[in-house]
Amino acid sequence: MAAMKSHRQELWFEVPQRRQLLDITPQVEAAVKDSGVLEGLCLVNAMHISASVFINDNEPGLHQDFEAWLEKLAPEKPHSQYRHNVGEDNADAHLKRTIMGREVVVAVTAGRLDFGPWERIFYGEFDGRRRKRVLVKIIGE
Amino acid sequence: MAAMKSHRQELWFEVPQRRQLLDITPQVEAAVKDSGVLEGLCLVNAMHISASVFINDNEPGLHQDFEAWLEKLAPEKPHSQYRHNVGEDNADAHLKRTIMGREVVVAVTAGRLDFGPWERIFYGEFDGRRRKRVLVKIIGE
Amino acid sequence: MAAMKSHRQELWFEVPQRRQLLDITPQVEAAVKDSGVLEGLCLVNAMHISASVFINDNEPGLHQDFEAWLEKLAPEKPHSQYRHNVGEDNADAHLKRTIMGREVVVAVTAGRLDFGPWERIFYGEFDGRRRKRVLVKIIGE
Repeated sequence: MAAMKSHRQELWFEVPQRRQLLDITPQVEAAVKDSGVLEGLCLVNAMHISASVFINDNEPGLHQDFEAWLEKLAPEKPHSQYRHNVGEDNADAHLKRTIMGREVVVAVTAGRLDFGPWERIFYGEFDGRRRKRVLVKIIGE
Repeated sequence: MAAMKSHRQELWFEVPQRRQLLDITPQVEAAVKDSGVLEGLCLVNAMHISASVFINDNEPGLHQDFEAWLEKLAPEKPHSQYRHNVGEDNADAHLKRTIMGREVVVAVTAGRLDFGPWERIFYGEFDGRRRKRVLVKIIGE
Repeated sequence: MAAMKSHRQELWFEVPQRRQLLDITPQVEAAVKDSGVLEGLCLVNAMHISASVFINDNEPGLHQDFEAWLEKLAPEKPHSQYRHNVGEDNADAHLKRTIMGREVVVAVTAGRLDFGPWERIFYGEFDGRRRKRVLVKIIGE
């Protein structure tokens, strides 16, 4: 038993393409270390509604599969198929991010992200070419 | 560092249609204020398995896109296509809620929901016309 | 107000088929009891990226609907349709788990999982026939 502490950090990204997956595990691990939290929970969420934070495998073939699969489930084009695309063209990004998820919550144990063997945290950008943020919030003792 | 506190609140809804998206951000913000928590985590989850809590944009065109998209990925009719629909007709609501998600976890910072520019919390009803609940649980200091 | 405590537990499974849904609510309830936490949050996550932890209904017809639906959205075969499947054959499991979700966060209230009437926690195995783990992490007071 101990008093509670909390830590907040923003991670910024500017992806040069419309869509890309970035492994952000090292930045989240650094935030956990900075927090001084030994036992707790770490929330990592996209602060933008056309981007995702999710956990999966860091394998390039799989990332190509994600791209093809999301384009099948929620195709970008034609832009005119979506009612959101009046002055916008990113409706598909909102849908893709819905499939992939806004956030992950990861246990912190003994001062580290408590991960299985292949778990890595990704930032999923679906409407890039501008500066966007991820929030890391850690609470615990 | 400080002692931990927690707060629990239920939000009730009775949606007159089968499907609708409701912006519940003001009610969740009020719960955060009531909690007195300054730094922590706020869980918001549907307590029913045919409804969702999710974060996205409060834009009517996008909400129509969600409706059309969910009907494509998990169509309501014919009811007979689902094995769950023996004495029930809401199998599609379970699938739609799976796509949209059961819950969100939002950071609380300086006593407020720590949101990006367009993030809003929605209750997604997929089998309405009866009273249903959302749970808000806040822990922190 | 009280000091914070935390509890960590692993649940192990070896599913004899490729795909199966297991109700793990009793094991998670037991972990909450073991934790001694009365008010807090309980994270339950798959530690493997081809498996899911999710909340839905314990109804066998619905589970058959999930199987058919996931096979429609992310079919297993032909294995050659996925770039990940070079020396692997489980790309579809990564996609299915993405739809179903990696984790749930459940409120703990008065020492129990704070659930609506039909909520049950499931382990969703999409690439079985080997030992795999779920992590339960509980923090609170």
